[in-house]
Amino acid sequence: MQDLSSNNSHEGRSRVVIEGVTPEIDGGQFPVKRTAGEQVAVEADIFVDGHEVICGALLFRRVDDSTWLEAPMQPLVNDRWRGAFIADRVGRYVYTLVAWVDRFKSWRRDLRKKADVGEHTDLDMLTGAQLIEAAAERAGGADAKKLADWAQSLKAKKVSLSAKLDHVLDDELGSLVDKYPDRTLATVYGKELGVVVDREKARFSSWYEMFPRSCADEPGKHGTFKDCERLLPYVASMGFDTLYFPPIHPIGRTHRKGKNNVVICGPTDPGSPWAIGAAEGGHKAVHPELGTLDDFKSLVKKAQTLDIEIALDLAYQCSPDHPYVKEHPHWFRWRPDGTVQYAENPPKKYQDIYPLEFTSDEWRELWAELKSVVDFWIEQGIHIFRDNPHTKPLPFWQWLIGAVKQEHPEVIFLAEAFTRPRVMYRLAKLGFSQSYTYFTWRNTKPELTQYFTELTQTEVRDYFRANLWPNTPDILNEYLQFGGRGGFMARLVLAATLGASYGIYGPAFELLEARPRGPGSEEYLDSEKYEIKHWDRDRPESLKEFIAIINRVRRENRALQSDGSLRFHAIDNEQMVCYTKQTEDLSNVIVVVVNLDPHHSQSGWVSLSTAELGLDPQQPYQMHELLTGARYLWHGETNYVQLDPASVPAQIFRVRHRLHREQDFDYFL
Amino acid sequence: MQDLSSNNSHEGRSRVVIEGVTPEIDGGQFPVKRTAGEQVAVEADIFVDGHEVICGALLFRRVDDSTWLEAPMQPLVNDRWRGAFIADRVGRYVYTLVAWVDRFKSWRRDLRKKADVGEHTDLDMLTGAQLIEAAAERAGGADAKKLADWAQSLKAKKVSLSAKLDHVLDDELGSLVDKYPDRTLATVYGKELGVVVDREKARFSSWYEMFPRSCADEPGKHGTFKDCERLLPYVASMGFDTLYFPPIHPIGRTHRKGKNNVVICGPTDPGSPWAIGAAEGGHKAVHPELGTLDDFKSLVKKAQTLDIEIALDLAYQCSPDHPYVKEHPHWFRWRPDGTVQYAENPPKKYQDIYPLEFTSDEWRELWAELKSVVDFWIEQGIHIFRDNPHTKPLPFWQWLIGAVKQEHPEVIFLAEAFTRPRVMYRLAKLGFSQSYTYFTWRNTKPELTQYFTELTQTEVRDYFRANLWPNTPDILNEYLQFGGRGGFMARLVLAATLGASYGIYGPAFELLEARPRGPGSEEYLDSEKYEIKHWDRDRPESLKEFIAIINRVRRENRALQSDGSLRFHAIDNEQMVCYTKQTEDLSNVIVVVVNLDPHHSQSGWVSLSTAELGLDPQQPYQMHELLTGARYLWHGETNYVQLDPASVPAQIFRVRHRLHREQDFDYFL
Repeated sequence: MQDLSSNNSHEGRSRVVIEGVTPEIDGGQFPVKRTAGEQVAVEADIFVDGHEVICGALLFRRVDDSTWLEAPMQPLVNDRWRGAFIADRVGRYVYTLVAWVDRFKSWRRDLRKKADVGEHTDLDMLTGAQLIEAAAERAGGADAKKLADWAQSLKAKKVSLSAKLDHVLDDELGSLVDKYPDRTLATVYGKELGVVVDREKARFSSWYEMFPRSCADEPGKHGTFKDCERLLPYVASMGFDTLYFPPIHPIGRTHRKGKNNVVICGPTDPGSPWAIGAAEGGHKAVHPELGTLDDFKSLVKKAQTLDIEIALDLAYQCSPDHPYVKEHPHWFRWRPDGTVQYAENPPKKYQDIYPLEFTSDEWRELWAELKSVVDFWIEQGIHIFRDNPHTKPLPFWQWLIGAVKQEHPEVIFLAEAFTRPRVMYRLAKLGFSQSYTYFTWRNTKPELTQYFTELTQTEVRDYFRANLWPNTPDILNEYLQFGGRGGFMARLVLAATLGASYGIYGPAFELLEARPRGPGSEEYLDSEKYEIKHWDRDRPESLKEFIAIINRVRRENRALQSDGSLRFHAIDNEQMVCYTKQTEDLSNVIVVVVNLDPHHSQSGWVSLSTAELGLDPQQPYQMHELLTGARYLWHGETNYVQLDPASVPAQIFRVRHRLHREQDFDYFL
Repeated sequence: MQDLSSNNSHEGRSRVVIEGVTPEIDGGQFPVKRTAGEQVAVEADIFVDGHEVICGALLFRRVDDSTWLEAPMQPLVNDRWRGAFIADRVGRYVYTLVAWVDRFKSWRRDLRKKADVGEHTDLDMLTGAQLIEAAAERAGGADAKKLADWAQSLKAKKVSLSAKLDHVLDDELGSLVDKYPDRTLATVYGKELGVVVDREKARFSSWYEMFPRSCADEPGKHGTFKDCERLLPYVASMGFDTLYFPPIHPIGRTHRKGKNNVVICGPTDPGSPWAIGAAEGGHKAVHPELGTLDDFKSLVKKAQTLDIEIALDLAYQCSPDHPYVKEHPHWFRWRPDGTVQYAENPPKKYQDIYPLEFTSDEWRELWAELKSVVDFWIEQGIHIFRDNPHTKPLPFWQWLIGAVKQEHPEVIFLAEAFTRPRVMYRLAKLGFSQSYTYFTWRNTKPELTQYFTELTQTEVRDYFRANLWPNTPDILNEYLQFGGRGGFMARLVLAATLGASYGIYGPAFELLEARPRGPGSEEYLDSEKYEIKHWDRDRPESLKEFIAIINRVRRENRALQSDGSLRFHAIDNEQMVCYTKQTEDLSNVIVVVVNLDPHHSQSGWVSLSTAELGLDPQQPYQMHELLTGARYLWHGETNYVQLDPASVPAQIFRVRHRLHREQDFDYFL
């Protein structure tokens, strides 16, 4: 800009400033996330020197479309403006902003002010006529004629000033000029910001993780895909929509780990499914004892009939027996003694796993091969993938997810990255559709409140979709070890209502498996990771029916299907937590109260803002408790709740509004 | 990145992420501000997948230098890193960041861990030898020889493992490898961020505004530059370093305003100095009644001998008589009746002022001419300029300030933009060295605390330098109208200690001028803006001596010469405010307590954190009150203060530390 002789004819003349745009992740480096049909609400500071009237518009398009669509920006307060569009289809969108000084609107506003004090003149009318004539030129067609006539009447000597004023203040003509704004000197925001639009499941999903090899009917037998097929109705009856398997590939024999992860492996030990690759194949093969690829495809199809999708674990690492080791030695790090470097984090050693060398000279070939793994499983009908991505380079994931979703925008990637906060968030920014969280270790009221406020009330909400797991095959939290059945129920309710997406590792969860490998350990004793288990899924203490109720409540209440509306509310007992979720139109308002103390009955007074929940503060309102079906009449902002972990440690209320129209007698529906 | 066949050989291999860089204004669009000798401390989130050791460096250079200098980045917590450099000279700097995986450091750390459990092997030594040999290749020269020898010793069969381990852990050799890091796959932060380095006065300045035409000795006479010269010792005696004049140019006659801004102007009315331009000239001429350009230059020189700089008001607008109107008709907006549009904000009219049309087709010529105005006054020895910039286009200022400072980096621009927050901040971002603030209307404790916390503890501090004015020719705040002498003193102390830069409009201020034009008005009655005043500067109630003390305290206490350390502290009286400023080394710690109630004596208990102020909580400490010279002994964190507006409504304490070394007997200095 310093050289005024520049060719750009209006650079210096674009006076309007557009700044402080939200959402805009890391200066526009990363897209925000939405699901199809969700709104993208954009805010910005838009202003100009002086006091002329300005206008702004939000421009948006699907990334493959060439023409921009427009939504008007509306002023809020203090030069903050807001506009919105619906991202109606899966894929990628971009948006940007434009704003301009509107001389016609400025003239009309000033004329009104002058008229208010009787200081409008014929000269003002001539000025306006010029502006309207300019609009006519931009308009063309029939509108041009209308506008030109209008301008003429403002210039006419015979028309009285008051008649001209009436004419100016005519809203129809005002709107007509607005159709042809002069954007010659408009400011266009310098960046096109991205939106990744996923299918709904990326936002709202209920996951069930299980080990196929533990699905046999008979104790001691290796489970198969056929066994899994037989268990699908069990999974469906609990209401899960996503069934997630640890790796299903051939397992290496070299340095295979034994039960409870011991270095010495017995002849019948099945090994860890994460030690992928053997003579039978690698990431594109299935473990022979599970069945054939056709068996797997049959399972996938059968699951579909029950509205269950299968999710696979990518687990980009190799056993020493993986075909890659011989075929592509450059994809591994070799030691001076001619052996491959196994995974280690001294003093821990994982001799059964070779990490891939993502930055070797042959990185392009490796990356392409890893993408072909995803492509292969997409061909088999899989559209949801997981990895523990924090142990592989971040640029790799950004490339992989971008490349896969360009061809298959329906694919969902879940990051099981139990790692440091910056890495966890970066993985979400660069493309993972959902992310594991620290929920697993957030058990107290201040922890839950602070963490979920961060996830849902800050910029994080625009790129990080939480998927909450009370347990995983790797994590049996202390709270579950000691909390008993009430503790499991409390954690389940928290996961399923704090998070629109959540999951459990079963049947360990519903069967209340709580034995750690040792004191202070979060590993399961006799973990399925290293052996085949047989589970008695019909044990009477099973939570399967409670889980089914929870998942039904989630399906029936749209408020629980997204996270942005989450708000915590005061309750005068540090062992109890209260929060709400609601739809934007307040047609579905859910209040959850959980007793976090798994050992004792607790009670407290909940404080709700009736205004925020759309309630008449003068009227009682019905609280419909969805787990039991009980209905309570609450009054005002403060009400009493008592919860006993020996029965059910939580209540999930749907607020039944008192309607204002007298004819609405369906109040107690 | 999606096309793996790209030519860029390591794009996908640069694994380290650099994000969340601070300071970085609007994604790097604007530079941060510092004064020469100040530190630029840069923080960033730097991390990588996995758990290898990473290193980072801050790169910086003067914008005209071709080579980068480096400062190491040091890890803080949670992947946050920090580095810093001193911006030692006036001008522009840029900085960026680089970070890389350090395989040698990773190997050495892991070897230590293995050695701790006795699991290090000869193979580990061979791996290290390879890494050291690679460093030797990068090093060359004598260091290459040393490194090669070292590698050799790690490979030697005859050397024992424990001897090799000692060798590895030798810090001298470790540092030698660190000199030659492998940055082949380093991540370079994608942006070069700017720093504008000003001279010290941009950060620390004491301003005095006065009307030259009111400087005559004799009542009724038009003051001259010669009269101003005679008043310089008066200004200097109060301790001001910047003397700021309203426009000194010829004043238009057409539509000239009379006393108190009435539309009818008497034959002797001098008009508003802001209605610039007459037959005698425009923005490059001086008003004949003030004297000649030579008189002005003599005044500038005389002021210099007293360490006073003259600041001028640019005031880019024209009276109808300004030569530009005839010479450059396209620089104005013409109405359909062939007249020029005067300034108006209906129903207000400013017929004596024509705004310039900054976005006309001849905008380039206009902008160039306006820059030549600045250049002209720079030639006359002026290096500080003011405008009310919010009424002219923001892109114009960005260009003008950038262009001027490229040639004259010593020039300071002050924005007197009493306007909306976004506009005020934008003007600072785009280049204004200092800015007027809302201080003028912040009178209560919550207002002051909230506002100055925003200015000094948020990102704003990096681009917005506050200049605090208790009054201006346009603003006589209600607090001053009704607060009496104590009120003036309180506002003075607040301005001069909350702000490293502050100013007063005198002699109205020191002479306690408090009469508004009417009830509810903030305009002065019989304002100097429209008439020549005669002031009795020797009136006994004048605050000139109090002002002199305040300015001496400011000069003698480095803590008061910048704003970043400002912190508010609790005091249990809503009419009293307490805050501190301190140098980074705690050698100068200032505690200010002000009674905001101008009518009554107030008292309260001040709470200070002894830890933050570097005090031993077990020892009493001396509080040296700098306005009176009194010394108090305070104990612990809570101490009592009483302040009477009838005498002095504020105390400015310097904390005299109890020193820890016994030989320091100069405790009570």
